Amino acid sequence: MYAAIDIGGTKIAAGLVDSGGELLARHEHPTPAEEPVTAVEALLGRLMADPRWERVRAVGIGSAGPIDAAKGTISPVNIPAWRDFPLVARVAEATDRPVTLAGDGVAMAAGEHWRGAARGRENALCMVVSTGVGGGLILGGRLRPGPSGNAGHIGHMCVELDGPPCPCGSRGCLEVVASGTAIAARVGSTSAIEVAEAARAGDAAALASFDLSAKALAAAIAGTAALVDIETAVIGGGVSKAGDLLFGPLREHLKEYARLSFTRDVTVQTAALGGDAGLIGAAALVGHAEV
Amino acid sequence: MYAAIDIGGTKIAAGLVDSGGELLARHEHPTPAEEPVTAVEALLGRLMADPRWERVRAVGIGSAGPIDAAKGTISPVNIPAWRDFPLVARVAEATDRPVTLAGDGVAMAAGEHWRGAARGRENALCMVVSTGVGGGLILGGRLRPGPSGNAGHIGHMCVELDGPPCPCGSRGCLEVVASGTAIAARVGSTSAIEVAEAARAGDAAALASFDLSAKALAAAIAGTAALVDIETAVIGGGVSKAGDLLFGPLREHLKEYARLSFTRDVTVQTAALGGDAGLIGAAALVGHAEV
Repeated sequence: MYAAIDIGGTKIAAGLVDSGGELLARHEHPTPAEEPVTAVEALLGRLMADPRWERVRAVGIGSAGPIDAAKGTISPVNIPAWRDFPLVARVAEATDRPVTLAGDGVAMAAGEHWRGAARGRENALCMVVSTGVGGGLILGGRLRPGPSGNAGHIGHMCVELDGPPCPCGSRGCLEVVASGTAIAARVGSTSAIEVAEAARAGDAAALASFDLSAKALAAAIAGTAALVDIETAVIGGGVSKAGDLLFGPLREHLKEYARLSFTRDVTVQTAALGGDAGLIGAAALVGHAEV
Repeated sequence: MYAAIDIGGTKIAAGLVDSGGELLARHEHPTPAEEPVTAVEALLGRLMADPRWERVRAVGIGSAGPIDAAKGTISPVNIPAWRDFPLVARVAEATDRPVTLAGDGVAMAAGEHWRGAARGRENALCMVVSTGVGGGLILGGRLRPGPSGNAGHIGHMCVELDGPPCPCGSRGCLEVVASGTAIAARVGSTSAIEVAEAARAGDAAALASFDLSAKALAAAIAGTAALVDIETAVIGGGVSKAGDLLFGPLREHLKEYARLSFTRDVTVQTAALGGDAGLIGAAALVGHAEV
């Protein structure tokens, strides 16, 4: 059995996941603006009070990035109280268990490969398209966290040399063109969900905003296929819930951008794990690290 | 000792490379428009007549792409006479040795990692910037040819969603913005060497053309760093011979595009192997395949 921690800017979740990938316990806490580690400690306290705790062999942590897997520290953009925070050391000390840390996109890829839409795939990109755009890679049947634990961060692949400025400091990143935030901002809306409703009602600007997001995603997926030779891209996150509104134009644009003999058959699929992806993914990190 | 074959649109080269990476014999032949396999057979005949042939354990082939490593076939864009040509079977039959095939960019990466600028690097992108733009990846200390043998093909990463059309059928690919062909075409010249001379003499349009190539390369290298977490990009090929004219603006643009904690320290270096990179790389494929 594994303990799993999912660190996000809005909430922190923790759970117990068995060796078959079933989530057996789940607790969550809003992410505190001050002293966020207190939330982690409170959640760990609840897990450790569980009678099944003694069967927990290791702890997996998927965290909003950037993180530094080598140093065991996290610096999530959306949790300003944590900069180079030594989370691995703190959790190892509290639990007396080995701890594996990776970025949340990497954890999502680990989870989708273990129990979700990328199961059995040797080479896949798994993406989260929501407020931002993140991801992780399965290459040669194995997770590729990279030395930093952040690999697969496709949201910061440039798709427009002179595109809009990105919060990362660059410009034209996939994230600033394709995220839910971008879909909403282009039509003056507050959420991609609202834009999806308008698009379904036939609103041309709303449809165009989804189309541009799909186009940028297609270009980035095609580029990833050229670069690392993947067979599929699995897409989760809030924006993926728009379904055909996103996947329809995405598949059309992919035909335009993925033209090489070894890229043109790349497929796109919807992620399978939904709301528990973060915790199952965090647990999957441990299994992948043990391979 | 290894036999090495380097298949290009202009010429085909073959050689003997010892286990330390020294090129001991080299023969070449212009690529025939008709029956190009006759050139390969002639070159193999010369190698097999060499008294050192009996020490050859295996044959490595780096070929202009695309190729299909799983099927052992090649379909080089610039050699129309070969489409799904079973080169591996033909060479294995002729030589009675095991044969390893990969794309020329992958071979170049294998060579630079074995004996060149990427030696000792765990995670690196190696690129060829000349008529086109190709490349290969070293990930986790190992070559990443991908299932097709074409991975690392960064020339077809999209850097402009609505950029110029690319011969591959897509648009805005790195290759159509950054290649020597593109550098020359933008200023109505016939070669990037001419443009480099004009740029050194202070010609503003020539400088701007190199700058745009450098900018696109920087964006693609930054995207590769975000996606697969590399520490360095090694650049070879004719355009890299422009030296500071390319590398100066490239390093400046890289500071703008590579902004994440785990990408901002990515370095760029000049390839070390020069004209023998193709053959040494082809031999290196065998060594990498044996890891």
